[in-house]
Amino acid sequence: MSAKPHFDRVALIGVGLIGSSMAHAIRRGGLAGHIAGYAHTPEIVERARKAGFADSMHDDLASCVKDVDLVVLAAPVGAFASIAQAIAKDLKPGAIVSDTGSVKAAVFRDVAPHMPRGVHLIPAHPIAGTEQSGPEAGFPELFDGRWCILTPAADADPAAVEKLKTFWEKLGSQVEMMEAKHHDLVLAITSHLPHLIAYNIVGTANHLEQVTKGEVIKYSAGGFRDFTRIAASDPTMWRDVFLNNREAVLEMLGRFSEDLTDLQRAIRYGDGDFLFDLFTRTRAIRRSIVDAGQDSAAPNFGRNKDKP
Amino acid sequence: MSAKPHFDRVALIGVGLIGSSMAHAIRRGGLAGHIAGYAHTPEIVERARKAGFADSMHDDLASCVKDVDLVVLAAPVGAFASIAQAIAKDLKPGAIVSDTGSVKAAVFRDVAPHMPRGVHLIPAHPIAGTEQSGPEAGFPELFDGRWCILTPAADADPAAVEKLKTFWEKLGSQVEMMEAKHHDLVLAITSHLPHLIAYNIVGTANHLEQVTKGEVIKYSAGGFRDFTRIAASDPTMWRDVFLNNREAVLEMLGRFSEDLTDLQRAIRYGDGDFLFDLFTRTRAIRRSIVDAGQDSAAPNFGRNKDKP
Repeated sequence: MSAKPHFDRVALIGVGLIGSSMAHAIRRGGLAGHIAGYAHTPEIVERARKAGFADSMHDDLASCVKDVDLVVLAAPVGAFASIAQAIAKDLKPGAIVSDTGSVKAAVFRDVAPHMPRGVHLIPAHPIAGTEQSGPEAGFPELFDGRWCILTPAADADPAAVEKLKTFWEKLGSQVEMMEAKHHDLVLAITSHLPHLIAYNIVGTANHLEQVTKGEVIKYSAGGFRDFTRIAASDPTMWRDVFLNNREAVLEMLGRFSEDLTDLQRAIRYGDGDFLFDLFTRTRAIRRSIVDAGQDSAAPNFGRNKDKP
Repeated sequence: MSAKPHFDRVALIGVGLIGSSMAHAIRRGGLAGHIAGYAHTPEIVERARKAGFADSMHDDLASCVKDVDLVVLAAPVGAFASIAQAIAKDLKPGAIVSDTGSVKAAVFRDVAPHMPRGVHLIPAHPIAGTEQSGPEAGFPELFDGRWCILTPAADADPAAVEKLKTFWEKLGSQVEMMEAKHHDLVLAITSHLPHLIAYNIVGTANHLEQVTKGEVIKYSAGGFRDFTRIAASDPTMWRDVFLNNREAVLEMLGRFSEDLTDLQRAIRYGDGDFLFDLFTRTRAIRRSIVDAGQDSAAPNFGRNKDKP
């Protein structure tokens, strides 16, 4: 392993599921000479130290980003503006600043104004995750075979973009380029609206008076349990996603509600053909996703394998 | 294995995912002296013969239910009335007639009127399944650790109910008794509404003009893919569920839509506390479901284990 690492020094601002998984994958690939991690509470710094995926853990931003070639904001999007402001003066000239946020236009709004000249801001979004969070939740394979979307500005430095792109490829991902605004629209339907719907139905089930919470839990294998996984995702992260991609989410939610009204009417008036046609079309999409390698072909996501 | 089987002869009217899984589990447990299967097309009779889980496959109902102690309707609920009418005259006196339908009040409406005196109608609903269908989809472990709900009428024969209850326990399930109408309400929230929502969002994603179908598939790992599994469930079965549990589904859908409007307003006006509170409460439900043994504790339902 005498090859030069991809970056001499990488800083991960935030070491939850995504930050810690990046550290594991960086280690796996030998992609950094030094991994510096930052967490905003002493407790998480300590837990991250124990997990051992970083070469140094910091409770102050200045020491974490010092001499760093790639700084990755892996914190909830709502914290980006204050982090960017805090690190600005300590960034190394020529450094790349990136992130892992689920919304991208907000990065240009909140981070770009603070960046000094000569620092390259290149937002990124790995489309990967689990319902777990915290520094213990990370694992090196999280990004394998998943897409990572980069949303560089039109005038971004091509060499810096290329450097970040090959970095993500070495982390296991396939990389796509996209305009930030379009990213936010695509993710509104493929990620944000699904989370919103999942949170909502779990909330609804939680406060019915005709059906007890015990019954909901007991009989959840009929379909409900699938939604609870997504609705167990990190509350702070998701609050910030919805607050920072409001327009695209409201647009997609409007479409969803329109369609739901149609479906409601079909049920009310017993229009079986309408239902059958829709349910047949949706089945085809599942097949495309499995064929594209974006989900397991095993029934029930393969969870029946866990059975005794 | 000299023990007497639980039933001498069992007939499975329908040999899709549920019927074929029952056959496999009956074989595993040695629960029947003979398993007779019926399918309504020669093609499915042939595929079931090839799969080999039944002792005899029939393309006519009369020969299938002849001398049978337990007849199980494992077909879409919309076919129950005509099946019941067709088998009525050939049922053995004292036989138990049951089913596996996802709605239960409709069974009393559609099947009970055709049952001869001395035949015991005891509706049942195993809360288990996958997104796959057809005679090749079944496997013996499908019911292990899952709940099966029986909804006998108030005046049902206690011995027949007990016999069916222990049968389902030997198939691997835990058994609960419930009034049919309450069952339909409970399942409306734990199963029917989740399917409706999943079908709807997949349908919405399918006809957007701002985001291509290719993008939806490619970036589905952000949450959307979870919904496509449920939305790949059998179209005929689900059409019949919605047509036959209309009132309970519309009631739950009304609650869902009310809550969604609240959530929409919170996003529009930037009410972060509302979002954070909801997202925290929903997380707790996930934990309860995992603790109750009704889902895998592994992140992403354990599907990351499939990764290279």
